Amino acid sequence: VIRGTGLFQALDGIGVHEVIIESPAHDRDLGDLSLDHVREVVGVYRDRARSIAAEPQYRYVQIFKNKGPEAGATLSHPHTQILATPIVPKRVREEVESGERSWRADGRCLYCRIIGEEETAAERVVRGSGPFMAFVPFAARFPFETHIYPKRHAPSFAGIDDRELDGLAEILRDVLGRLKTVLSDPPYNLVVHQAPHPDSTRVEWPEIESFYHWHIEILPVLTKIAGFEWGTGFHINPISPELAARFLREA
Amino acid sequence: VIRGTGLFQALDGIGVHEVIIESPAHDRDLGDLSLDHVREVVGVYRDRARSIAAEPQYRYVQIFKNKGPEAGATLSHPHTQILATPIVPKRVREEVESGERSWRADGRCLYCRIIGEEETAAERVVRGSGPFMAFVPFAARFPFETHIYPKRHAPSFAGIDDRELDGLAEILRDVLGRLKTVLSDPPYNLVVHQAPHPDSTRVEWPEIESFYHWHIEILPVLTKIAGFEWGTGFHINPISPELAARFLREA
Repeated sequence: VIRGTGLFQALDGIGVHEVIIESPAHDRDLGDLSLDHVREVVGVYRDRARSIAAEPQYRYVQIFKNKGPEAGATLSHPHTQILATPIVPKRVREEVESGERSWRADGRCLYCRIIGEEETAAERVVRGSGPFMAFVPFAARFPFETHIYPKRHAPSFAGIDDRELDGLAEILRDVLGRLKTVLSDPPYNLVVHQAPHPDSTRVEWPEIESFYHWHIEILPVLTKIAGFEWGTGFHINPISPELAARFLREA
Repeated sequence: VIRGTGLFQALDGIGVHEVIIESPAHDRDLGDLSLDHVREVVGVYRDRARSIAAEPQYRYVQIFKNKGPEAGATLSHPHTQILATPIVPKRVREEVESGERSWRADGRCLYCRIIGEEETAAERVVRGSGPFMAFVPFAARFPFETHIYPKRHAPSFAGIDDRELDGLAEILRDVLGRLKTVLSDPPYNLVVHQAPHPDSTRVEWPEIESFYHWHIEILPVLTKIAGFEWGTGFHINPISPELAARFLREA
């Protein structure tokens, strides 16, 4: 429900906020756990995402993890958070619209094209085998920013199957381990990007299944956001994505 | 010049980066200087903005200031930076387009409307007298975020006149002093938002003079940007703008 009139309108506070405790061990981050344990955690991600998505008043389910105080973590015990919002977030809308524009232009999923071109270029790939690909994006905003894409085209993380969950646990543990080795246990944010709730997309983006592709972004916190970034939306990244990928690949 | 083909394209590095040293005193921030001194600094802002804008290869001139390491300052001596970019930045484009949409709908400048409605509401105004108004915006992203708008409609900071520079020096010094008092000398980013170069806007936004309105945003750094913010573009602000404005007004 929107309250207020004219320029000043506010949305009623409705949503979900869940905290997933990843392990009883206080000093073990997600990437330090056994493969079975990580598989269980990502299984919980899926179960909760499905359960929340069953309630249509929530238009977007966001799964994210903050590690370290510099990355905004207010709890030091390893945890992941799930938030659901009653509207489609600004950045998700931008991604969906940019995916749609690209798909309307050439009939292909932009994310599938990125997977193909990154595989060919190879120099930014951190790990390419199995059902997922991890790479440092061409226009990485942050040093050692790493994305994980499922090779199978699918708009929503909640639709992940059991075999893919095995692969996800494996690559997530691997990538987090590489970041920890190369960057000495860095603070980071991890964000799952997925399509909004189908009830939201049916009207605005009825063909979203064709052009959106869920993925994970891991953003190590090594630089500060300052006036230039806030004013422009551009980011200053002092390391080339190719060099960052090579460090991670060789770790 | 754009290099590369397909998905992976890069822009040649061309631009301007200038650093304005605000004072010989290492431990005095902009808000601590005398009124005449602040007037001289904002006069330098204008002179450099005009001079850079005379070169049409720079599409946007950004003036900003980072105070304190948490705000991304890498020099501790008080300074302001000016960057010019060969393209219109993402966030500037968003502001311009949103201003245009609003103006096409009702024929009025969105920013002039905000000034009017904030004056009427009064509860978010920090200081309203003179040629500028300082207020905490209705949808403040950060605690104690404060904007300074010129009351005279003008798209570009570079077009500011001498009398307005006097008023700007006065309100800037006043607002920075209030923030320092209330928040115990906080780190902050200060960003001047102005219209892109006329050569850029002539084609895309020929009527920009009517709908864009330059302004300054001051963003104290009291919270961390984390997974939720990166994933959604939304911000969690733990203090209401009305309460923040009251603290600043009463300081």
